[in-house]
Amino acid sequence: MATHKLLLLPGDGIGPEVMGEVKRLIDWLNAAGIAKFETDTGLVGGAAYDAHKVSISEGDMVKAKDADAVIFGAVGGPKWDAVPYEVRPEAGLLRLRKDLALFANLRPAVCYPALADASSLKREAVEGLDIVIVRELTGGVYFGEPKTITDLGNGQKRAIDTQVYDTYEIERIGRVAFELAKKRKNKVTSMEKRNVMKSGVLWNEVMTQVHKREYPDVTLEHQLADSGGMMLVKWPKQFDVIVTDNLFGDMLSDIAAMLTGSLGMLPSASLGEVDVKSKKRKALYEPVHGSAPDIAGKGLANPIAMISSFGMALRYSFDMGALADKVDAAIAAVLASGLRTADIKSEGTTAASTTQMGEAILKEL
Amino acid sequence: MATHKLLLLPGDGIGPEVMGEVKRLIDWLNAAGIAKFETDTGLVGGAAYDAHKVSISEGDMVKAKDADAVIFGAVGGPKWDAVPYEVRPEAGLLRLRKDLALFANLRPAVCYPALADASSLKREAVEGLDIVIVRELTGGVYFGEPKTITDLGNGQKRAIDTQVYDTYEIERIGRVAFELAKKRKNKVTSMEKRNVMKSGVLWNEVMTQVHKREYPDVTLEHQLADSGGMMLVKWPKQFDVIVTDNLFGDMLSDIAAMLTGSLGMLPSASLGEVDVKSKKRKALYEPVHGSAPDIAGKGLANPIAMISSFGMALRYSFDMGALADKVDAAIAAVLASGLRTADIKSEGTTAASTTQMGEAILKEL
Ligand SMILES: CC(C)[C@H](C(=O)O)[C@@H](O)C(=O)O
Ligand SMILES: CC(C)[C@H](C(=O)O)[C@@H](O)C(=O)O
Repeated sequence: MATHKLLLLPGDGIGPEVMGEVKRLIDWLNAAGIAKFETDTGLVGGAAYDAHKVSISEGDMVKAKDADAVIFGAVGGPKWDAVPYEVRPEAGLLRLRKDLALFANLRPAVCYPALADASSLKREAVEGLDIVIVRELTGGVYFGEPKTITDLGNGQKRAIDTQVYDTYEIERIGRVAFELAKKRKNKVTSMEKRNVMKSGVLWNEVMTQVHKREYPDVTLEHQLADSGGMMLVKWPKQFDVIVTDNLFGDMLSDIAAMLTGSLGMLPSASLGEVDVKSKKRKALYEPVHGSAPDIAGKGLANPIAMISSFGMALRYSFDMGALADKVDAAIAAVLASGLRTADIKSEGTTAASTTQMGEAILKEL
Repeated sequence: MATHKLLLLPGDGIGPEVMGEVKRLIDWLNAAGIAKFETDTGLVGGAAYDAHKVSISEGDMVKAKDADAVIFGAVGGPKWDAVPYEVRPEAGLLRLRKDLALFANLRPAVCYPALADASSLKREAVEGLDIVIVRELTGGVYFGEPKTITDLGNGQKRAIDTQVYDTYEIERIGRVAFELAKKRKNKVTSMEKRNVMKSGVLWNEVMTQVHKREYPDVTLEHQLADSGGMMLVKWPKQFDVIVTDNLFGDMLSDIAAMLTGSLGMLPSASLGEVDVKSKKRKALYEPVHGSAPDIAGKGLANPIAMISSFGMALRYSFDMGALADKVDAAIAAVLASGLRTADIKSEGTTAASTTQMGEAILKEL
């Protein structure tokens, strides 16, 4: 059995708690002889700042590059609101994405039937929802230069951010979306603001070309990102795979996540290019939710998004699709049994702690 | 009685139909001696392109600058999808905003009780909703330079858009938001992405200063734009006034509009600085909805957003708050009577045409 190297980066807030439940799952998989994971742990975000005054240390970056997959918790919190911009908690995550070239961020928005009522949307609008946002993750306004604040004198400053996209960046994220759609409902919706942004014009043009040239059998639709956002709120089930840039993807995937009513349940995968020689790809898996500093350390956090992110690692990094299916089934079974953490609790259901939820899922497995 | 000069720019799609109902209202106000409006009409968007191969003619720009207020319908449609970027329909609207220096875009998102069920959100989440998005309208990525597509050779192109904000631009839009909040629930929520964008850092800093210096009695909260978007979908009533930049404002105001279930009902005002001498300010009023080419020319369009936008003109440009209140009351009364255009029709209600709706509102007045 091959040994897989994992780097666990729990981060801040509820990160360590939810990561603890993944660790429990990994230990069990190792002990039961189902898989062979070698784990190492590092610091990222505020935790790294507190220890080394950086958002991630060079040593941990080396470990991340060396690992077969990085399992990431969450970063940030009011404690680090005043730290310098360059070493703010988020910088650690952004560096991981950029230096590992994790250009493809997959964010499924799935509505668990047992939780449809937790959504602010009507049940009929979200029940059975199953879409994926494919977000470009290493380009756009997140990384474009110049990115500066200049003092103009006279009490005036000027802030600049730059949105940059090259053809190849749009092509490769397009391919990820089309490939995914082929295994799903065969439909891709590309979103941009071509009526205002030159990057939107190029995005639209390149998506259209990739479609015509390589994926003519997949349905491709184009939407302006603002009306796409509206359509998402109005009737999300009209979508299958949505492909969009880094900043629109940030907004739209968060909104899609909120529609499901199950923010604490949603995983994400950030993937690099497949290496031609080793057939491997760099990857990072993280829950969509943040570090939730307000409930950190209380055992209240929902570990499902984190466990489910590890499930995506099994699927996308280790070709253990069958095991990933079992993890998904265990989560669904535990939910069906009525067990709920505080964030998804409704009347008549039991409030479980982070640990109780993690243990219940493991027991189901 | 002072004479007020209006420029009507109906634009494309359903624009001319809904503008017709405003024209009806204006004619009646003039005839009844309630006000004295002098109207002129121009072309914008696809209509201007068809006539002059531009998105707005120089002559109409002169008229717009000369008018006390511009009343704008909607622009765009598939017919003009292939026209050159510089003369696409939207360019006319963007030029009006920029050349008239209409930096403050006010977009109320109000849920009419009679229509709460038209929302995809649960009734309790939207009933009684009354928030305003204050969107910066002449800066940011919409107008920043460079804004280019360059051919890099090798089949590669590079697209660049530039997000730029200066201190004074953030200050003045901040003041609009705080002033508005003082007349409302006294709360402003500022949204940006300071964890990723330098413009977000400056935005946050300047809002904090304006608040401290000039509006310490108004509550100011800061939210990251992505989680702000989530909060908007989860529980919109937590907000009063949201202030944000041009691009986030585009996304967030559309989403807020969709929450109400009444996109065809929502007006907007785009305002310039108040001139110290004349005490006047340039202004443009337009419905939040688009040109809806699919239903254009069929008499199906809902004229309420357009009439309500004219109501905002009465309030903000002509100091006729009492008359504006009457227009709002007439709209509410007609809705309460059960009259509905096709977009907001539910079972058991009558589907009215654009004209019938316009006439009913006028009769109520
Ligand atoms: C933490 C932050 C930098 C990040 C982003 O903006 O990409 C987050 O919001 C996300 O969506 O993963
Ligand atoms: C038509 C388009 C240029 C415009 C914008 O992006 O600002 C529209 O979406 C709006 O919100 O007024």
